Amino acid sequence: MRAEIIAVGTEILLGEITNTTTPFIARQLADLGIDVYYQSVVGDNADRLEQAIQLADTRSDLIILTGGLGPTKDDLTKQTLAKHVNEKLVINDAAMGVINQYFIRSQRLMTENNRIQAMLPEHSQPLDNPVGMAVGALYQATKHTYMLLPGPPSELIAMFEQSARPVLVKLYAQNNVLVSRVLRFHGIGESELVTRLADLIDHQTNPTIAPYAKINEVTLRITAEAKQEQLANQMLDQIEISIKAQVGNYFYGYGEHNSLPAVVVNLLKQRQLSITAAESLTAGMFQSEIGSIAGASTIFNGGFVTYSLAEKAHLLNIPTADLKKFGVVSEETAIAMARQAKAALQTDIGISFTGVAGPDELEGQPAGTVYIGIAYRDQAPEAHLFHFSRTRNLVRQQSVLTGFDLLLHKLQADK
Amino acid sequence: MRAEIIAVGTEILLGEITNTTTPFIARQLADLGIDVYYQSVVGDNADRLEQAIQLADTRSDLIILTGGLGPTKDDLTKQTLAKHVNEKLVINDAAMGVINQYFIRSQRLMTENNRIQAMLPEHSQPLDNPVGMAVGALYQATKHTYMLLPGPPSELIAMFEQSARPVLVKLYAQNNVLVSRVLRFHGIGESELVTRLADLIDHQTNPTIAPYAKINEVTLRITAEAKQEQLANQMLDQIEISIKAQVGNYFYGYGEHNSLPAVVVNLLKQRQLSITAAESLTAGMFQSEIGSIAGASTIFNGGFVTYSLAEKAHLLNIPTADLKKFGVVSEETAIAMARQAKAALQTDIGISFTGVAGPDELEGQPAGTVYIGIAYRDQAPEAHLFHFSRTRNLVRQQSVLTGFDLLLHKLQADK
Repeated sequence: MRAEIIAVGTEILLGEITNTTTPFIARQLADLGIDVYYQSVVGDNADRLEQAIQLADTRSDLIILTGGLGPTKDDLTKQTLAKHVNEKLVINDAAMGVINQYFIRSQRLMTENNRIQAMLPEHSQPLDNPVGMAVGALYQATKHTYMLLPGPPSELIAMFEQSARPVLVKLYAQNNVLVSRVLRFHGIGESELVTRLADLIDHQTNPTIAPYAKINEVTLRITAEAKQEQLANQMLDQIEISIKAQVGNYFYGYGEHNSLPAVVVNLLKQRQLSITAAESLTAGMFQSEIGSIAGASTIFNGGFVTYSLAEKAHLLNIPTADLKKFGVVSEETAIAMARQAKAALQTDIGISFTGVAGPDELEGQPAGTVYIGIAYRDQAPEAHLFHFSRTRNLVRQQSVLTGFDLLLHKLQADK
Repeated sequence: MRAEIIAVGTEILLGEITNTTTPFIARQLADLGIDVYYQSVVGDNADRLEQAIQLADTRSDLIILTGGLGPTKDDLTKQTLAKHVNEKLVINDAAMGVINQYFIRSQRLMTENNRIQAMLPEHSQPLDNPVGMAVGALYQATKHTYMLLPGPPSELIAMFEQSARPVLVKLYAQNNVLVSRVLRFHGIGESELVTRLADLIDHQTNPTIAPYAKINEVTLRITAEAKQEQLANQMLDQIEISIKAQVGNYFYGYGEHNSLPAVVVNLLKQRQLSITAAESLTAGMFQSEIGSIAGASTIFNGGFVTYSLAEKAHLLNIPTADLKKFGVVSEETAIAMARQAKAALQTDIGISFTGVAGPDELEGQPAGTVYIGIAYRDQAPEAHLFHFSRTRNLVRQQSVLTGFDLLLHKLQADK
């Protein structure tokens, strides 16, 4: 089974947009155990697209075409495939219904072009689009299987997850079910994670373990194939135990769409613990991350950005003499900031960030030196020192995520 | 002149990394007037790479290969191209010098593998790598020109800008110089910008005008070709005047690496105007953007995150009765927040954000309703109402950028 992905779109050829749908499909196919040997891009040109399909026919079994399913004259993918497999284009009633409803609801006039979006090569199986109007399709010819998917990432991802993936599982997973689980890690790099799990990764074929490096975190997608879902889940449970035995201290949560701030804020909401912050180098970024989670207002009322020494004294009521004595980048100042913020807003938790974002050093301390203070419930306030590397804004981002990480460990220890 | 880009790397085929170097090169070639008709990806496999090069030979003149220039056994691009063009690999002395120096400086042992990074097909022209060890190359065969570039984006971009672009200009720009300028716009969508400039874009071949949509902004790259740089710049000046006549109100600055917050913070620094903020739905994001610019401390001492009604009253000293009477999402509250923040920190400017991030409505107002207040120097404080669409965090981001936009217009009017 060899698969090939052809992305169609002149805007990709010109570099006007970055092709993120091909890597998404490639990851999904890798999870399904389907090998992708070739990826290519062609513009909105029927002749060159036909040539690309002919070439794919010579070297691949499953050919996935993305893009060019829209209503404009540049959208030629369905037309070209239909001609290639010698089928005519016919209206798909379900897709037409969706389009009709859209135009009734939005009180706009439907043009003839819009009908094209509901058309498919005859004898193909439609793939529903949960978020847009272009319908996808699966077409099985004698030697090859073709799949048509939309170009816009939101439509493609929704269609893939809802319609295309189940079809592929059915076609290629030999009546087995495939179950995936995403584990998320913070505070460990991809290469170190992979090194620590080398034995597991090298010897494992089912479940498979696929690491992905993201900004400031790493995820592992584990996928098991079994006769029943329950069995697959048991296999995942077992491998998860083995993984956590090696790197469990860096694990923070599950799921493709999740984040360390989301996990911590949701835990605070569950426990009904309120929080505030006093931020110097991060200048509001930690609080903004809290505010990014819907419903944060149940545990967050507000806080302080204290960028200068003067405002650390003024807004947080810390004696100027202390700030000058210990320095603004110090354990004592971090502790005072967290404690005073907590006291001012009468919260359960106060957290503080003070340090040197760079590029220049401050108080004789190099860029990347950061103290994070925590005043947690009735525990004695404490501060932790970090030496982050990289550029000014990566230092600030690392500080914020490390703050959430410290909080997570506090919450986990406090049961 | 037809160009083709082949990216080499199994990690791209598997979707483990998103291929951002191909769109970068595609944009650069588009600027140079070189047409890219095909893009493809192959894994770290010599046979399939050789097939991809053979295919490219049949349909393209300039073939750019990226990735696979490193020291590991997976890195086969140079070896494969050398064999394809029937040349042996030879050590490039300049590149070898860089590698030697690196190992001396880092006091690490050089392995034989590392020497491979300094090797090139004989008779090729080396392309310097300002940030890494892999050397690039240009090889001119009878019918085709091949270019070898590294895979990691930081190395590729640096090598392209410093070494590859000048070579391509020399080869394909017929002794003319090409000069580019990037204009940045906020508050107008790509489709509207393109519609307003339709006449200019459609009829212009030199300078060329290339729009790129980014998150919450649009950039235009204008590129002129002329006998001398001065002449090209004059052509750019003229087209810029025509562009600004149509959409000048949305223009905020120049340059590939620039942003609206950077332009505003640098203007505040120039004018020595201090600023503070009181943020509700944005929860610190505006202040964090200020803190992202190096040297912000000369104009920014700190500010407030006032997420709840209680903290708007407590931290900003606004009468609770007023907040209840007008509502927290109101012109009056936005004005009071900006005014009180400015007064508390004795700054030249206070800005405030209050609104409904969503997903739920608040005080009977729909998600996306946002008031931005400005207390600017000795002018009467004012507030502006916006109705942003899209999701919670896009509403928050749009609010912050619109705040900077309002400030920019205030600063421009105050000369």
